[in-house]
Amino acid sequence: MEYSRTDRTTLVRAPRRGVYDRERIHAILDEALICHVGFNGPDGRPFVIPTAYGRDGDRLYLHGSSASRMMRDLAGGIPICVTVTLIDGLVLARSAFHHSVNYRSVVLFGEARLIEDPKQKERGLRLFTEHIIPDRWTAVRAPTEQEMKATTVLDFPIDEASAKVRTGPPNDDDADYALPIWAGVLPCAIRYGAAIPDERLDEDVEIPEHVREYRRPGPSESAG
Amino acid sequence: MEYSRTDRTTLVRAPRRGVYDRERIHAILDEALICHVGFNGPDGRPFVIPTAYGRDGDRLYLHGSSASRMMRDLAGGIPICVTVTLIDGLVLARSAFHHSVNYRSVVLFGEARLIEDPKQKERGLRLFTEHIIPDRWTAVRAPTEQEMKATTVLDFPIDEASAKVRTGPPNDDDADYALPIWAGVLPCAIRYGAAIPDERLDEDVEIPEHVREYRRPGPSESAG
Repeated sequence: MEYSRTDRTTLVRAPRRGVYDRERIHAILDEALICHVGFNGPDGRPFVIPTAYGRDGDRLYLHGSSASRMMRDLAGGIPICVTVTLIDGLVLARSAFHHSVNYRSVVLFGEARLIEDPKQKERGLRLFTEHIIPDRWTAVRAPTEQEMKATTVLDFPIDEASAKVRTGPPNDDDADYALPIWAGVLPCAIRYGAAIPDERLDEDVEIPEHVREYRRPGPSESAG
Repeated sequence: MEYSRTDRTTLVRAPRRGVYDRERIHAILDEALICHVGFNGPDGRPFVIPTAYGRDGDRLYLHGSSASRMMRDLAGGIPICVTVTLIDGLVLARSAFHHSVNYRSVVLFGEARLIEDPKQKERGLRLFTEHIIPDRWTAVRAPTEQEMKATTVLDFPIDEASAKVRTGPPNDDDADYALPIWAGVLPCAIRYGAAIPDERLDEDVEIPEHVREYRRPGPSESAG
């Protein structure tokens, strides 16, 4: 199933890179750890702030301190743009001009809504935490009432959505293939190292499987 | 030396995370591969687009196709926000509430300017390419006049700038340190794999050192 295209989400210049398929967009959102949220400050000038998020079907949950300027701005229902980007490799062409980057990005437009219902708020926080690290929510101390009050959770519907994807080798000009210049792709990905226990951790507390075996959903698992 | 603080760049809620030091801001800009550019479309609603960049002292170079909507918008001197984010680890606390992410981000505000001078334009493209992969510019076919025409390069002064940095272990509530819950940091970083030669590459063309030994400047090299 696809998200409907709008003027803002329809790619003009490189239409073959445009992706509107719901599952592929969700897979990119699930693999990435953070998004960049764009919105206008009170003076009408743009801000772009990195933040984590969780996904719940066709919505994202954003969260922050109830005291944060950004959370107050966003809760007001102003237009926002949420962008998520995964970098998969450097595309090294024979000409400077055709250098590129392999990437998968998602751009979402819409408005966020303050979640007031305590059950949805808790669900939002759980999915937010599980987006960062699955199986963590039930392993840790749950939020107190005071902590819930200190946290704002926003519901951002995924509605006006598109992805843009570049894969594969460089696209050099025909004449340049004869040049004796190395060309190809230097692949890259985020890697997670060995967990560093907190210095104040009791030695008896073993590292749990959800930390030891941590990895994000990758393209091979999410590709349809 | 520090960038001057403004209302927009001064951190209110977690001032200890604010960094205004020029060298530390430059180091984050040099280590990251891409930025997210925020600007308003003609309808006044925000867009956030990922793109690569180069740095030249106190300016960034942005570039794109001369036919691109975004390049035309930005070249008009509208207010933009450029944000760069590096993720260094997942901060796993004993409580859900204190979970966090270790990161280094830079937020820049200002306006971009179209570069018309051919020499500065070429310098911009060179630094843009060398930001992605050092020593590449002189190893590849230089841009033709036609390619230069097809490319827009923008000059974005680094002036209103701040960084925000979180490092270290979780900050749990005092009472929670007694809980038998694993806590610590799961470090992460972008890793580059073995280069994949283009299928059409002549076997005689050896992989150059700037590809084989590729790595980005890291915190250990850039930290003062």
